[in-house]
Amino acid sequence: MYEVEVKLRADHGTVRERLAEAGAVREAGVKQTDTYYGAPHRDFAETDEALRIRREARVDDGDGGDEGETTKVTYKGPLVDEASKTRSEHETTVGDGESVEGILSGLGFEPVETVEKDREFFALDGYTVTLDAVAGLGEFVEVEAAAETEAEIDAVREGAFEVLRRLGLDPDDQIRTSYLALLLAE
Amino acid sequence: MYEVEVKLRADHGTVRERLAEAGAVREAGVKQTDTYYGAPHRDFAETDEALRIRREARVDDGDGGDEGETTKVTYKGPLVDEASKTRSEHETTVGDGESVEGILSGLGFEPVETVEKDREFFALDGYTVTLDAVAGLGEFVEVEAAAETEAEIDAVREGAFEVLRRLGLDPDDQIRTSYLALLLAE
Repeated sequence: MYEVEVKLRADHGTVRERLAEAGAVREAGVKQTDTYYGAPHRDFAETDEALRIRREARVDDGDGGDEGETTKVTYKGPLVDEASKTRSEHETTVGDGESVEGILSGLGFEPVETVEKDREFFALDGYTVTLDAVAGLGEFVEVEAAAETEAEIDAVREGAFEVLRRLGLDPDDQIRTSYLALLLAE
Repeated sequence: MYEVEVKLRADHGTVRERLAEAGAVREAGVKQTDTYYGAPHRDFAETDEALRIRREARVDDGDGGDEGETTKVTYKGPLVDEASKTRSEHETTVGDGESVEGILSGLGFEPVETVEKDREFFALDGYTVTLDAVAGLGEFVEVEAAAETEAEIDAVREGAFEVLRRLGLDPDDQIRTSYLALLLAE
C-alpha cells in the first residue's frame, strides 16, 4: 500500500469555511506527539527514511467523545514517487511506548526530534483532509488517500490536487518537506 | 529489572511428579513461535544481544480456557551476570506482527532463526518453573524470577538453584546457551 499525501501551508479559518461549503464531514480531533529516531547504521536524512514513535491522544471522535491514548510505531521507507511524497509504510500499535524506547535505545537508535501537533480530520470525496497546527511551524492542510498499487499513484495524486482546488488552494504551493525536516531546518 | 533464569535439560515426566509433590501450581500452557533477527550494524552472536518477535498461542490458561494469540517484540541486551544469564530486557505487545516484520526488514534487520516450543508454566516458591519442549532440541526445565536491582541478582539466583534441588535437579547441569544458539549450532 502507498500513502499518497499532498501538503501545503494554509490558514485554517478559510479552509474550514470551504470544507463546510463542500459538505466535508469532520471525523475526529487528536493531539499527536511524534518522536523521530536516527539509526546507528544509516543517515535517515540521506536515505529519506523515518522511524517514529507516535503518541496520540484523541481529543474527540467527531461526536464529542473522548477515546484515550494510543502508541504506534511507524517506519517510512524511501520515496517511491517524488511528486506526491509517496513511500511504503509499516505501522503497528504497541502496548508499551516506554519499552519501545528501550528496544530502540538498546539497538543504538537515538531520538532526534519531537514533533507536536493538533490535527483535525475531515472526509471529502474519498480523501482525508487534515488541518494540522504544528508547534513551532504554524498551520498546514494535508490531503491524503491510499493507493493499493504503484500504478494507481498518479490518479490518486491527481484526485488530491482536485480536492485542494475545491478548497480554494493551489496544488503548486505543495510542500514536499516533512514537518520533521522543517523543524530540523529551523 | 533483571530476568534471572536457570535452565537445564531434564525429562519432563520425572519433573512433573516432583512439581506435584512440591505443591507447584500449573498456571498455563502455550505454544510459542519465536523469530530471531540479525542486525545490519552489529553481530548479535558477538554482542550477545537478541531481537525477537514472539507469536504466542495460549493453549490453556490452567483452567482449560483458550485465550487466543498475542505478538510481542523483545530486545535482550548483553549479559550483565554470566553466572545466571542475567540481562536487561525490553518487551512490548504489538498489534500487528506482520507490520513489525516490515519495519525490521525496512531497517535492514533480517530473520536468522525460528524457535518453536510448547511451554507449561508452574508457580513454586515465588519462582516460575517452565517445562519447555523445543522443536529439534528436546525437553528442558527453566526456573526464573525477576530481580529488581543488580544487587538482588545473587540471592535470586541462589533461590532458583534451591528450587532446582527441590525438583531433584542439579544446578551444576545448568546450560547457559540459549535455545537459539543451540539450534544454530545443530
